[in-house]
Amino acid sequence: MFEQPIPTLRRDGEVVHVLDQTLLPFRTETVALRTLAEAAHAIRSMQVRGAPLIGATAAFGVALALADEGADDATLAHALATLGATRPTAVNLHWALERMRLALQPLQPAARVRAAWAEAEAIRADDTATCDAIGRHGVRLIREIAARRPGPVRLMTHCNAGWLATCGAGTALAPVYAAQAEGIAVEVFVSETRPRNQGLLTAWELRAAGVPHILIADNAAGLLLMRHEVDLVITGADRIAANGDTANKVGTYLKALAARVAEVPFHIAAPHSTLDFASADGAAIPIEDRGADEVLHVRGEAADGATAELALAPAGTRAANPAFDLTPAALITGIVTERGIARPGELARLYPEQAR
Amino acid sequence: MFEQPIPTLRRDGEVVHVLDQTLLPFRTETVALRTLAEAAHAIRSMQVRGAPLIGATAAFGVALALADEGADDATLAHALATLGATRPTAVNLHWALERMRLALQPLQPAARVRAAWAEAEAIRADDTATCDAIGRHGVRLIREIAARRPGPVRLMTHCNAGWLATCGAGTALAPVYAAQAEGIAVEVFVSETRPRNQGLLTAWELRAAGVPHILIADNAAGLLLMRHEVDLVITGADRIAANGDTANKVGTYLKALAARVAEVPFHIAAPHSTLDFASADGAAIPIEDRGADEVLHVRGEAADGATAELALAPAGTRAANPAFDLTPAALITGIVTERGIARPGELARLYPEQAR
Repeated sequence: MFEQPIPTLRRDGEVVHVLDQTLLPFRTETVALRTLAEAAHAIRSMQVRGAPLIGATAAFGVALALADEGADDATLAHALATLGATRPTAVNLHWALERMRLALQPLQPAARVRAAWAEAEAIRADDTATCDAIGRHGVRLIREIAARRPGPVRLMTHCNAGWLATCGAGTALAPVYAAQAEGIAVEVFVSETRPRNQGLLTAWELRAAGVPHILIADNAAGLLLMRHEVDLVITGADRIAANGDTANKVGTYLKALAARVAEVPFHIAAPHSTLDFASADGAAIPIEDRGADEVLHVRGEAADGATAELALAPAGTRAANPAFDLTPAALITGIVTERGIARPGELARLYPEQAR
Repeated sequence: MFEQPIPTLRRDGEVVHVLDQTLLPFRTETVALRTLAEAAHAIRSMQVRGAPLIGATAAFGVALALADEGADDATLAHALATLGATRPTAVNLHWALERMRLALQPLQPAARVRAAWAEAEAIRADDTATCDAIGRHGVRLIREIAARRPGPVRLMTHCNAGWLATCGAGTALAPVYAAQAEGIAVEVFVSETRPRNQGLLTAWELRAAGVPHILIADNAAGLLLMRHEVDLVITGADRIAANGDTANKVGTYLKALAARVAEVPFHIAAPHSTLDFASADGAAIPIEDRGADEVLHVRGEAADGATAELALAPAGTRAANPAFDLTPAALITGIVTERGIARPGELARLYPEQAR
């Protein structure tokens, strides 16, 4: 079982402490969440991010709301609606809130607070176990490559789908950590992931876990794949439609295209809570637009060690900022889940109860 | 004829003034080049950039060397070798230096200084005329789209191949400026172009010329093309092989792939000096690696208006930084040159004297 170097989410009585990911990789600080508003803000502002961690934080957000505001039907409904509106694309958020609703709505208000904490804890524990299972299944892909030829297995990932994005080992990076635990040499090409630079979070978490990695501009992925300097691409997902079309961080699609042309396997790693059988295909998935500001500014560390933000372009410059893109199922070699690896079109076989 | 809002390269007697593009888009300053070393530094450090402008600056660098150091054979050879070693991928550099060598080597040293200035001036004048001709040919592509449907023609470009990259109207953007001059409404999606952010130069020069534009993260290009929110992609080139395979700023290949899948035309715009018939295909083109530092740092403007640099990742983080990638000829709809638009495989028909 993978142990997080620093817990991404920790409960202390009626306070939830989350690692503030907007300060990483420069400062390691936690933020205390005590209210619904604070939990919703943490998700919306991306203090917590990563589809599984968003789901768990939302579940704890419901518990915070009921503990803070009372546990009547109106408060519960308001908490569910408020948290549900924070991010439109990640389906784990809705999955976690629905699980909370099903657990709490039938109860008397007096029993709900305690049950909310328990259910949120269960969601967190399930996520940890799920990450480990994804790692166990996914490591086979890495093991096969390691057996075929000498030298480290060279993976490429996009955005951050590691331990920082979950309550456990991560999704896309869980197989990497499993390989490391088995003593297989790996090397991870980490795509910067503009405009929010979550690749820098990936570099930070790989460093914290002792995994060799190489940072690249998003633009470099095509040449590296064309030159066959990458053995395997694995990314996470924010929502997977019934046919396997996948919404993930913007830029994923371009890597999938280049991987296909180079005949490099391209895998998605995600838990069942990312599967959305209600969306027939990618066209049904809403794509969040996060506005110009993220494209026009960048954060980094100044020479004096202070975290600073710079403008990249004059204020008023128009910018488009879709936060996700769609990778068609036809470009995806396999989807690594906690129940095994499926071809995109075969998800219903692994998850018949969800596909119904 | 297009008039540059600010000259990218201006000669004043025996001093050459170039716009310092490492300070843009934040500060508009020129740097005075008086010696070979200063000219070589300006190219290597990307104070001047863009394949055609690099060529012209190198030509003036030869003149500076001869004026400063004397015009004997050894000085000429040293100047050609020094400037030729500044950037490995852009072939215009070698083309311009070869043109200088052919013009100067046969002359007596006493006649070389004056001839060097004259030849450098001729190279600059040719570049300006070439840009205008590329604009005249390329605007047809925009005109055809404008005639087919209402609303602005939506172009996408990568890096900077506009007036800043040349002594005239630019290459990829010359057709845009020609369309603007004809009164055709255009809108340009400008890809940020990490790691050096030359897209911000493109946004700056389009603003200076009054052309509407929308900045995007490089990662967003795939979704925009998939959604058919772009009518036409045009980029410049740093070197085009005999078969049409094209080296251009890293990230170009990913856009070409996504354009092909979406059936959006993908054009390269470049002058004859970018054609390298000696390279049979892309595999023969050297790809410059510019080192980790550019990936690990970013420049921008602080709140107080000062230009500042921030670290994005801890010092010592490994990074790979290929500056260019290769777009296979099969993905290129057409190459817009000063002699017309050719399919990639038909360049020899337009330039028989070079193809020999």
